[in-house]
Amino acid sequence: MAKQVVMGVVGAMGAVGTRMIQCLEASKIDVKDFVPLDIAANAGKKVTFRGKEYTVKEAKEGNFKGIDIAMFSAGGAASEVLAPIAVKEGCTVIDNSSQWRMTEGIPLVVPEVNPQAAATHKGIIANPNCSTIQMVVALKPIHDRFKIKRVVVSTYQAVSGTGFKAIQELENQAKQFAAGEKIEVNVYPYQILFNCIPHIDVFLETGYTKEEMKMVNETKKIFGDNTIDVCPTAVRVPVFRGHSESINVETEKELPGIEELKEIFASGEGIVVVDDVKDGKLVYPMAIDCKDKGDTFVGRIRRDPTVKNGLNFWCVADNLSKGAAYNATQIAELLVEKDWIKGAQ
Amino acid sequence: MAKQVVMGVVGAMGAVGTRMIQCLEASKIDVKDFVPLDIAANAGKKVTFRGKEYTVKEAKEGNFKGIDIAMFSAGGAASEVLAPIAVKEGCTVIDNSSQWRMTEGIPLVVPEVNPQAAATHKGIIANPNCSTIQMVVALKPIHDRFKIKRVVVSTYQAVSGTGFKAIQELENQAKQFAAGEKIEVNVYPYQILFNCIPHIDVFLETGYTKEEMKMVNETKKIFGDNTIDVCPTAVRVPVFRGHSESINVETEKELPGIEELKEIFASGEGIVVVDDVKDGKLVYPMAIDCKDKGDTFVGRIRRDPTVKNGLNFWCVADNLSKGAAYNATQIAELLVEKDWIKGAQ
Repeated sequence: MAKQVVMGVVGAMGAVGTRMIQCLEASKIDVKDFVPLDIAANAGKKVTFRGKEYTVKEAKEGNFKGIDIAMFSAGGAASEVLAPIAVKEGCTVIDNSSQWRMTEGIPLVVPEVNPQAAATHKGIIANPNCSTIQMVVALKPIHDRFKIKRVVVSTYQAVSGTGFKAIQELENQAKQFAAGEKIEVNVYPYQILFNCIPHIDVFLETGYTKEEMKMVNETKKIFGDNTIDVCPTAVRVPVFRGHSESINVETEKELPGIEELKEIFASGEGIVVVDDVKDGKLVYPMAIDCKDKGDTFVGRIRRDPTVKNGLNFWCVADNLSKGAAYNATQIAELLVEKDWIKGAQ
Repeated sequence: MAKQVVMGVVGAMGAVGTRMIQCLEASKIDVKDFVPLDIAANAGKKVTFRGKEYTVKEAKEGNFKGIDIAMFSAGGAASEVLAPIAVKEGCTVIDNSSQWRMTEGIPLVVPEVNPQAAATHKGIIANPNCSTIQMVVALKPIHDRFKIKRVVVSTYQAVSGTGFKAIQELENQAKQFAAGEKIEVNVYPYQILFNCIPHIDVFLETGYTKEEMKMVNETKKIFGDNTIDVCPTAVRVPVFRGHSESINVETEKELPGIEELKEIFASGEGIVVVDDVKDGKLVYPMAIDCKDKGDTFVGRIRRDPTVKNGLNFWCVADNLSKGAAYNATQIAELLVEKDWIKGAQ
């Protein structure tokens, strides 16, 4: 990876943007120059990248010039307007919002699952939803060998997915509880401390939420297989970092025994198997253990005897890392390494 | 319910026992005398029942005499020894532990689902596991009409299911977090605050936990139908009170549309439908809303299009009330009302 590149981060002051900067610092990318961008109100603020201070610029027309790759985490509305501008100014955009994910011709990439899709980009590459990314990483080695027919998934999603203000709210609510004060609710519609809220993103006519439909549609697109059915329930839990998922899978081909299944999971790229519950051992993945890690952790692997080729497992990843910033950084690394920065333009 | 009865509560000082006393106070039962029992260390302590103070007796041979119905929440080991003694001394035992639930000839009763089973008791009636109770209450109207083939369930279980010490631990951990102190872990194998632990009760050879197998086996026994398959994942979450469950159901017969399904759920005994997510309304069941309530709350009702007759819903109940003490009290009311105290002895 000899090529030097100019990297931009749009939404540099946000929860994911902050993590993007950290992931980029730790990446193999030889960054010639670094350009942090954010809303006008944050312009002029300072951020540090690999030991050097940079001034945040406003994310607007004209300010994307000279940037090779811009990682966006600025929300869908900003991305809708700004990503095409950035592309016009010569950037390749890796966008973390849901804005472009399902647009035809825009690749939706998880480097462990469909790296080749990144080569086909015309300026924008979409980063999938956090809850989808860790699921498809975990499902990949199973799908490759046994072809997945159906997935029933229930999520346990951390508040950091909502951003800094939600992290702050959970922290405040914990402090209010400890002080015996009234618990204030601002970010979520209800108290999240000591509660589970079965609602993430907007409700659709069908009764599903947008978050749930992301898991349905993005999974099909990433695997390039419309026959994979996903039935999701997305739930917010009082956890700061790390989404957990209870995943039930039905495959077309016959599944092997547990020990072999564990080996198959472990052979999957980006997967760490954390699973040993024999003889009193209590080894399984947990949200508190995944912070700042780029891997997807899989455990509680067991056959589901209620269906012909059934499998259950528990899957945990850092929603801000593998679920967002780290995945975007991996895409950037891929573009540099394969010389795909200019893509199929 | 004219008959006057002498009621005992074994494990009166515990989390469930305390709630049993409250439920019994609020019940229709005409309590002639009340006998709280607990371990020797708690004997002599005072508890209040319907405004009168009672002294806790040691739960041991001889001390069950004169009690008509004893509600046990003393754990499996104590129940194994003491329930037969209590029966011998003339009690009818309603036992909240897992000790007798799967024993042939001992009815396992959820009054909304299989009240008639209570009539067949020979001294002991078992109260099902908390996570099972709310699920079978919710499934009952669906099973009656459409015959359930398979259930995939992931739970979000409150710490109060573990007892007072776990409630204290979560409270302490929140206070330690707020004070910036080290978080102490004593009750669970890992920190529960801001975490999800995919492990409740002991692990079995199959990789499932005992808690999970309770949901499998108790559901079959309560419905008296071994063809209902349940595939469970039981998870502890940082919530004080109220278990939530993400439930996916496949039925034999064709399911109707959502509005009709909501009516069917609402017609079920003990079910309150909390479900309105149209036009920006955000009405769904949550753990923080169920405390001290005897109902099972059902929401997020939606069809699962990935399977022929599929249905998803979210189910919440107070694990200490409907999941334990209230269900036991309902059984006691049933015994008194139907004159089944002496059962089929």
